[in-house]
Amino acid sequence: MIARTPEPPYYAVIFTSLRTDTEQDYAATAGRMLELAADQPGFLGVESARGADGLGITVSYWASEDDIRHWRVQAEHREAQRRGRADWYRAFRTRVAKVEREYGMG
Amino acid sequence: MIARTPEPPYYAVIFTSLRTDTEQDYAATAGRMLELAADQPGFLGVESARGADGLGITVSYWASEDDIRHWRVQAEHREAQRRGRADWYRAFRTRVAKVEREYGMG
Repeated sequence: MIARTPEPPYYAVIFTSLRTDTEQDYAATAGRMLELAADQPGFLGVESARGADGLGITVSYWASEDDIRHWRVQAEHREAQRRGRADWYRAFRTRVAKVEREYGMG
Repeated sequence: MIARTPEPPYYAVIFTSLRTDTEQDYAATAGRMLELAADQPGFLGVESARGADGLGITVSYWASEDDIRHWRVQAEHREAQRRGRADWYRAFRTRVAKVEREYGMG
């Protein structure tokens, strides 16, 4: 659940969202996108949480910016992004960031 | 709830955690830390979610790495970090990242 990422540097895509009330195809597509992301070159891990207040945060980790670009334009992912904008999200932000250091416990 | 951050570049601290069962002082301290963080120099915003499976993700945004270092060693925050390691978290990762681009909707 906490991603086991390598020594920095590597990249993070921080996706923060608020959902609409539309449930149709959402859970199945979200699950499919996690599965598909994990098969892409450079995928390092993902962490995801949605709170009771409706705010969702998904952070995916990638070896390089090229890997992120490749994933962003993957055909099935593009179609999911289109559905996301049209149906599932009322607001979202995507931030691409270079992880420079990491520490922790457990 | 979705942070309104300025044009990149700026910095993100991605804090991912799994809680213990210890509730004592946790909610009050977590609330106090959000309040205190918002008063620090360079604070740009924060997003936080904890899912039903127990994984929590809090992302705070900062103008510079110096601002993050300053917040990390702030006295009351240091004591909260100590309590976190001892009592509230069974595992956590902290990742410091430079946000290079951002886009979104809503």
